[in-house]
Amino acid sequence: MELIPGNSLVTATPEEGRKLALELALHSIYAIQPDENVLRAGRDVYTTDPEELIASSHVVAIEFATIAAANNYWR
Amino acid sequence: MELIPGNSLVTATPEEGRKLALELALHSIYAIQPDENVLRAGRDVYTTDPEELIASSHVVAIEFATIAAANNYWR
Amino acid sequence: MELIPGNSLVTATPEEGRKLALELALHSIYAIQPDENVLRAGRDVYTTDPEELIASSHVVAIEFATIAAANNYWR
Amino acid sequence: MELIPGNSLVTATPEEGRKLALELALHSIYAIQPDENVLRAGRDVYTTDPEELIASSHVVAIEFATIAAANNYWR
Amino acid sequence: MELIPGNSLVTATPEEGRKLALELALHSIYAIQPDENVLRAGRDVYTTDPEELIASSHVVAIEFATIAAANNYWR
Amino acid sequence: MELIPGNSLVTATPEEGRKLALELALHSIYAIQPDENVLRAGRDVYTTDPEELIASSHVVAIEFATIAAANNYWR
Repeated sequence: MELIPGNSLVTATPEEGRKLALELALHSIYAIQPDENVLRAGRDVYTTDPEELIASSHVVAIEFATIAAANNYWR
Repeated sequence: MELIPGNSLVTATPEEGRKLALELALHSIYAIQPDENVLRAGRDVYTTDPEELIASSHVVAIEFATIAAANNYWR
Repeated sequence: MELIPGNSLVTATPEEGRKLALELALHSIYAIQPDENVLRAGRDVYTTDPEELIASSHVVAIEFATIAAANNYWR
Repeated sequence: MELIPGNSLVTATPEEGRKLALELALHSIYAIQPDENVLRAGRDVYTTDPEELIASSHVVAIEFATIAAANNYWR
Repeated sequence: MELIPGNSLVTATPEEGRKLALELALHSIYAIQPDENVLRAGRDVYTTDPEELIASSHVVAIEFATIAAANNYWR
Repeated sequence: MELIPGNSLVTATPEEGRKLALELALHSIYAIQPDENVLRAGRDVYTTDPEELIASSHVVAIEFATIAAANNYWR
């Protein structure tokens, strides 16, 4: 599985950039743990645990910072 | 639900930028966990746990850093 | 309650910038949890727990990085 | 073991940059803990624990931010 | 107690910049928790807990990033 | 003990820069906790705990981001 869908950080809009940030964060997890059964079991845990939801959103925020800079903040 | 309300990082003032940062952090959570019942239960937990309140404010700080840079710090 | 006291990131000195960073971090918490009783109880916990004091200082460091950049490091 | 494969941050594409980010994160761990038995046992733990998978993806996101800036975001 | 000793981020050398980073991190803690007895008890805890030592060094790294940028990396 | 070996962030190569990042992270710990017995005991803990290994690599990633910027990414 590719790490960066489309192999580019350039997106037309901030919304697309935000989607890409979510994808990058997820694809990192897939790269570290490719077993879908393990991931599915884990998803039931982290998506219902506030602390882990916050930690996930933290990673998205950092990925988005990179993508936003790559797109010169869509200015 | 959109990830970035208004599909732009540009805001008129720092205060609006800070509100957007809070929204981005929240919308990440909604994107990862769309079930409102789960979110409502989780909210009762994280908003009364200092460690998780601090972790939430941490994400807001990172989102705000991106938005502030996007607006050239409203200089 | 406003998120950014004075609705500006510009301060005259680094010391004022650091105070603003502390305020931004706190005001995020107030925005997420407006109930003062909950906050007061939480304060007794996190201000006496080294791990949470460190986590708080971490958020201040990130807010300050943004404010310092906004003020071109007061050079 | 080298810390930076190829001793360069420059990559041809974002995908290669992302791979390098994963490698940098892993090579840090090897440098801190060279014992492969310890690492193998640890891998079984962190790759099945959502919290640690998220923490790992967090490090990748930071490494990638550096590599992306090094490559001027492959613009 | 002042938050930023000397009310400036400018230092003559990286070593002085690193010292300032350590001071900023500590002064944040003092600002959040001014009670010296609480701090002394906490110090015995976090300076003997690897996880909290690592978390402390994490804050120093972020403060240093800001100070290094403020000094244009002493180039 | 000095905080920054060589009192400079400039290195000839990324690999040297990465080594410096590891050293900066370690020297922060020494500065916070100078007692070698405590450090040795702690090392046995954090180098065999995946969560703390990940947290350590996180600090290295941040230190490296600063050093890479200081060296203009060795471009």
